[in-house]
Amino acid sequence: MTVDELAKEIGAEVVGDGSATVTGCMTLETAEAGQVSFLANAKYTKQLDETKATAVICAPSVKNDRVTLLKAADPYFAFRQAIIRLHGHRKHPFAGVHPGAHVDPSATIGENTIIYPGVYVAPGARIGRDCVIYANAVIYDGSVIGDRVIVHACSVVGADGYGFATHKSEHYKIPQVGNVIVEDDVEIGACCSIERGALDSTVIGKGTKIDQLVVIGHGCKIGPHCLIVAQTGIAGSVTLGHHVTLAGQTGVAGHLTIGNNVTAGAKTGIIADVADQKTVVGMPAMDVSHARRVYLFFTQLPDIVERLKALEQQVADLGTDDSGGVEVV
Amino acid sequence: MTVDELAKEIGAEVVGDGSATVTGCMTLETAEAGQVSFLANAKYTKQLDETKATAVICAPSVKNDRVTLLKAADPYFAFRQAIIRLHGHRKHPFAGVHPGAHVDPSATIGENTIIYPGVYVAPGARIGRDCVIYANAVIYDGSVIGDRVIVHACSVVGADGYGFATHKSEHYKIPQVGNVIVEDDVEIGACCSIERGALDSTVIGKGTKIDQLVVIGHGCKIGPHCLIVAQTGIAGSVTLGHHVTLAGQTGVAGHLTIGNNVTAGAKTGIIADVADQKTVVGMPAMDVSHARRVYLFFTQLPDIVERLKALEQQVADLGTDDSGGVEVV
Amino acid sequence: MTVDELAKEIGAEVVGDGSATVTGCMTLETAEAGQVSFLANAKYTKQLDETKATAVICAPSVKNDRVTLLKAADPYFAFRQAIIRLHGHRKHPFAGVHPGAHVDPSATIGENTIIYPGVYVAPGARIGRDCVIYANAVIYDGSVIGDRVIVHACSVVGADGYGFATHKSEHYKIPQVGNVIVEDDVEIGACCSIERGALDSTVIGKGTKIDQLVVIGHGCKIGPHCLIVAQTGIAGSVTLGHHVTLAGQTGVAGHLTIGNNVTAGAKTGIIADVADQKTVVGMPAMDVSHARRVYLFFTQLPDIVERLKALEQQVADLGTDDSGGVEVV
Repeated sequence: MTVDELAKEIGAEVVGDGSATVTGCMTLETAEAGQVSFLANAKYTKQLDETKATAVICAPSVKNDRVTLLKAADPYFAFRQAIIRLHGHRKHPFAGVHPGAHVDPSATIGENTIIYPGVYVAPGARIGRDCVIYANAVIYDGSVIGDRVIVHACSVVGADGYGFATHKSEHYKIPQVGNVIVEDDVEIGACCSIERGALDSTVIGKGTKIDQLVVIGHGCKIGPHCLIVAQTGIAGSVTLGHHVTLAGQTGVAGHLTIGNNVTAGAKTGIIADVADQKTVVGMPAMDVSHARRVYLFFTQLPDIVERLKALEQQVADLGTDDSGGVEVV
Repeated sequence: MTVDELAKEIGAEVVGDGSATVTGCMTLETAEAGQVSFLANAKYTKQLDETKATAVICAPSVKNDRVTLLKAADPYFAFRQAIIRLHGHRKHPFAGVHPGAHVDPSATIGENTIIYPGVYVAPGARIGRDCVIYANAVIYDGSVIGDRVIVHACSVVGADGYGFATHKSEHYKIPQVGNVIVEDDVEIGACCSIERGALDSTVIGKGTKIDQLVVIGHGCKIGPHCLIVAQTGIAGSVTLGHHVTLAGQTGVAGHLTIGNNVTAGAKTGIIADVADQKTVVGMPAMDVSHARRVYLFFTQLPDIVERLKALEQQVADLGTDDSGGVEVV
Repeated sequence: MTVDELAKEIGAEVVGDGSATVTGCMTLETAEAGQVSFLANAKYTKQLDETKATAVICAPSVKNDRVTLLKAADPYFAFRQAIIRLHGHRKHPFAGVHPGAHVDPSATIGENTIIYPGVYVAPGARIGRDCVIYANAVIYDGSVIGDRVIVHACSVVGADGYGFATHKSEHYKIPQVGNVIVEDDVEIGACCSIERGALDSTVIGKGTKIDQLVVIGHGCKIGPHCLIVAQTGIAGSVTLGHHVTLAGQTGVAGHLTIGNNVTAGAKTGIIADVADQKTVVGMPAMDVSHARRVYLFFTQLPDIVERLKALEQQVADLGTDDSGGVEVV
């Protein structure tokens, strides 16, 4: 495929020689001739002077005479389209339910859904069409999974929530009689646990993408198009709006409401509701502009204490001067 | 079943009409007619004015004329009993060891224990009676699991502890020749790893409940009736007393001793022993009353620095006044 | 085997009676007669007065008349050798690929490699010789695993990285067309996820040891002989040098470069590059000596604010005195 042909397919404008053949995509640093690369950020523009890539997808504003540019309004999405065109999505080595999977007879699996070996689908679970459930994932009883959902290996959908009634100093299991509903176009990374609701449903909204080793507590209502990054944990009965981003290792305490378009930085500890549109950072979670100052001063604490000490000395000296010799301890 | 009949079974007192039929349990917000709900906290009492639940289990002190109340001394436990009575525990789709599980011939499995497909039970492991080991959990060699233990999907009991001797800049594996002992009535959530002891046993005490994605390091002695919440990690050779609660994403450094009835807040970093009865919070873990003030002032650091700056200016001015013009930098 | 014989094999010098027979290794506290133990730290030397161990491996400088000492230049490594000699490495209950594993016909498995039941090895994966892949681990397509690599149960090598292009408010999957390369002598604990590269390879360097529930993001280049402790998460495209140690629950933001011999304390949040040889601690990561002072003052914040308040009062009083009655608010 030529650069010109690719540009046409991904909706990019060619600046430079469009006649060269390209066969794959690669990062700027490691690309070889014949590969298409991607400039993520204008501040790396000088990498264009060294890349061996045959063409580079970039924003319309980028300028470079050395390498052919493929200018696109949404360059990252255009690069994604190029990857799909040149590499494609994973080809699965079989179709449908692999005989090494264990699907309960009362479970239903939609058309074109791929179930890898070692997957267990429990009674009454429903999986939609065009899904991929990778090896050794486990779908508990009664889970409802939409269409085009991807669940990676060793992830667990619908295990019991952490519900115990403590009575006379012993913890008694509360049967978790709810389920999990995973809406269409969700992706769940490896080794995650999405707990079933205690009484009602835990819901993962349409188009939400969950990274590796994430825990979603029982009864959470996760809105659509959220990004929940690796090792984040959300306690029970939390509501997330749409387009919420929780960066890696974030924790959310139980029963909170996180608004729409909220973003939380990595390792944030959310212990109170967060309003729509807010960006929060830190432990405890603070508005990002406040948090930046808090953490700046936090790292400067030794200096701050030195200033305090100096001031104490100065004031003691002033007091001594004023009072004609009274000592200030 | 009528409300009166249910009340009798769960030891609650009916205040209101006990003749209605109830068929299931649900949260206050989403309950429909015919469902029993639960008031967790007196401060939500006004939710009773809106719920559609037919009856609500609550503490003896709650008052409401609109909905039938089921008053119980331990309402959460009574609600749990109602869930068991109306919904029951999970019904398993088979009995005993599923043929899709792999149990080494030298392992022993007790009566009425359910082993799901994809479980691997290694040589010499012993699993007691009335246990449930969910799909794709792995029980390493020599693990000893008591009665009525639940292990959720993709959890691992007895993998090698993280033990290496670094010699001439390379890390040499130390064979982990201990094992794991899981006592009776323990529950382990999905995707956890309970490491085997390096030399002796890692012990999970009777009745302890472990949430999802928890790591227990090699040689830990976890006391009975502890609650270890999701994504908590306990390094090697830690001793926990009884009734310890570690909230989500807590970390405990190696070789520490945590006393009885200790509670740690979410994301706590425990780097020193904790005495009996203490509640600790923060990174590093501090007594909760101290930690509250520390974190309050932490979030106020920008103000504190402003106050310091103002004071510096005032003192400089004072110094200037006093000394007839000497400049203070 | 006598103490003398063991000493010879592990290169230790016997101080005391070397004629006794030893049959196993155990910790100092729980050792019985006939067992060899290990003194990890000179400050625990008085434990030698109480141990029932027949012999104790220790550093050359240790002195004790009561128990036979096995003095070694590298006592921990010598103890490791003793464990291997007296207990050996795990004996596997079968050889080669267990019939309960699912290995794609296009995957290759080296000589003497053990594949446990429930393991899935996807198309085109290559596993070297003398490896052990424990039950229910999943090796995605195209992964390349060296020799003598150990992968524990329910770990996932090569799941898709977390790569999405957000376009018109929806997140579109970017095919992850890279792979994972795990070099020789790597060990990966249970329930880890090593993401495949988006375009190129995620690399785990020779001899690196990864603990339980670790996430390595797509495109990371982890150097040789690193130690990555439990529940650590490394975002995408991070480069680690050699001999880097990241303690438990550490997080590393994307695209950073961590130098050689860097050590990070538990729960550290690394948000900027770290130079060779540095030890960093805290959130955000700070040089350890600075961090110690920062965290000390952090825990003293209530005192610091009291001092500030006292000073404000003193200055107000001074101001009042000086100015003959002007009030300072």
